Amino acid sequence: MQWYFVAALLTVLTSSQGILTTLSQSNGGYKYDYATVPFLAEAFKLAVSSLLLWQEIRACPSTRMTTDWRSVRLYPIPSIIYLIHNNVQFATLTYVDTSTYQIMGNLKIVTTGILFRLFLKKKLSNLQWMAIVLLAVGTTTSQVKGCGEASCQSLFSAPIQGYMLGILSACMSALAGVYTEFLMKKNNDSLYWQNVQLYTFGVIFNMARLLLDDFQGGFEKGPWWQRLFDGYTITTWMVVLNLGSTGLLVSWLMKYADNIVKVYSTSMAMLLTMVLSIYLFTFKPTLQLFLGIIICMMSLHMYFAPPSMLVDYPPNAKAAPENLKEITVERKSDS
Amino acid sequence: MQWYFVAALLTVLTSSQGILTTLSQSNGGYKYDYATVPFLAEAFKLAVSSLLLWQEIRACPSTRMTTDWRSVRLYPIPSIIYLIHNNVQFATLTYVDTSTYQIMGNLKIVTTGILFRLFLKKKLSNLQWMAIVLLAVGTTTSQVKGCGEASCQSLFSAPIQGYMLGILSACMSALAGVYTEFLMKKNNDSLYWQNVQLYTFGVIFNMARLLLDDFQGGFEKGPWWQRLFDGYTITTWMVVLNLGSTGLLVSWLMKYADNIVKVYSTSMAMLLTMVLSIYLFTFKPTLQLFLGIIICMMSLHMYFAPPSMLVDYPPNAKAAPENLKEITVERKSDS
Repeated sequence: MQWYFVAALLTVLTSSQGILTTLSQSNGGYKYDYATVPFLAEAFKLAVSSLLLWQEIRACPSTRMTTDWRSVRLYPIPSIIYLIHNNVQFATLTYVDTSTYQIMGNLKIVTTGILFRLFLKKKLSNLQWMAIVLLAVGTTTSQVKGCGEASCQSLFSAPIQGYMLGILSACMSALAGVYTEFLMKKNNDSLYWQNVQLYTFGVIFNMARLLLDDFQGGFEKGPWWQRLFDGYTITTWMVVLNLGSTGLLVSWLMKYADNIVKVYSTSMAMLLTMVLSIYLFTFKPTLQLFLGIIICMMSLHMYFAPPSMLVDYPPNAKAAPENLKEITVERKSDS
Repeated sequence: MQWYFVAALLTVLTSSQGILTTLSQSNGGYKYDYATVPFLAEAFKLAVSSLLLWQEIRACPSTRMTTDWRSVRLYPIPSIIYLIHNNVQFATLTYVDTSTYQIMGNLKIVTTGILFRLFLKKKLSNLQWMAIVLLAVGTTTSQVKGCGEASCQSLFSAPIQGYMLGILSACMSALAGVYTEFLMKKNNDSLYWQNVQLYTFGVIFNMARLLLDDFQGGFEKGPWWQRLFDGYTITTWMVVLNLGSTGLLVSWLMKYADNIVKVYSTSMAMLLTMVLSIYLFTFKPTLQLFLGIIICMMSLHMYFAPPSMLVDYPPNAKAAPENLKEITVERKSDS
């Protein structure tokens, strides 16, 4: 399977995720407990991965599976980072409004690039760095509040703590991604075995979260497992399956592609969601959305196109007429 | 003189032009006849160029000056194109509002690139094309109306004629630039002699325009030469000198650099004006201005940086320069 096929599928599914979630609301609210969705998605991913692992072992008994505790103990770490991230996110939102938070969220594109370089030691060309910054600029451009839109905060008006926490949040989010990539690539273990470990901890952490919610609510509505599917419709199930599938695709990309590919997929999905919302939810198209799409497309091309397609190699390398070289050298010294 | 020094000077002067013009207004209007400003600027450029030509001839009697009518007759053409352009501009503004017109004005960056390629046969790399599109996107982004701003037209709400005329206007503007470059570079004539021809026609066309205005006004205020300096202040004179100086720099760039350099200079000037307006006219800084500046800076770097700085050459080519040619040819045939 080619990574760009998986990346394109991830874009489409991530984009549907936003739309399905909106469709699953009734009268602007959820009739079901939203916290049950990630739990069921983790359970779905665990079930699928277990099944695939079982099949793989049957087909090839020599499937690589490191069961040493020193390896297994690394797998809850992404869940722990996400847990901390959720709390930072919550703290950030006490200082800044949601649209500022959304704008700051694009910072994670740049922080992912930086941590990717620092921790995974991947070299990026100057042009690829520019592409990453442009991707963040492009997604931000598409989100600029147009004139006439209701809520309208002036730029950088929130307290400094809000921005510091926003940056921290972007770093945590990038760290979770980069750490997962490190985990998936650190040995040749079967992807499904790695997934089983990852999602087992995922299920545990999500169960703990649901239980904690129950404790905080004083078990007024009863324990979570008794009302797990309350208010679920066919759309809610689609949200669960969709979230689970995108998770599986991300984990595939972490092993066989990288974080930058994932960042491009999800950024493109954000733009696709906005475009689809024009048709589905009578979302008003804005000039900034159009500009953002152009910027992100340019960025995509800059990052992934082979350099020989982007720049002209020195003329003497081409099968060119004799005097071309001379002329160019002459022009060079002028300028 | 290096072209980038001239380009930087052009940026600073073009930017001051906007600020000086605003400062020369009193109570939101002009106390002087604005049409006299370009006339005096043309006269200033003609005087300066004549002086410099005279000096050049004295220093070097063999100065190249083509006085053949077949060459001279080409010099009024830029003035004629600008004249048509002004009328198209006027027609466009009957269909679209000024802020839509301003946004569409950025199209001339792209049309200049296209005409530059078509008429002057200059090859641009894929990356340079992307840089040109990004420059237009960046300047447009910086001009997106922020939330809370007064006039707020919905996107693409003007009649189709408005947009067609806007595109025509962008083409005319690009054509004038590209034609001037062709004119300046077509032979090795002295730059000052070329300027003298260009500005002589410039003075004539501007005089004709002032006279036409007088006819249309029924000479109510008397002929233009009697009230040429009416309402002029020191700031107005600075506007004239500034406009004249930028004209001379543009003509230098057309001969020794090219239209794309000019387009970058004036686009950067637009952004610089907006930044300076924050301090000078309590213009509110917007997120879109910040994003626009980043995009334009990236574009500048993409267009002008040497390819070897932007992309990594194949690693084996770096260590062993001998085989660079081979590898490049091989890669070329791949793509």
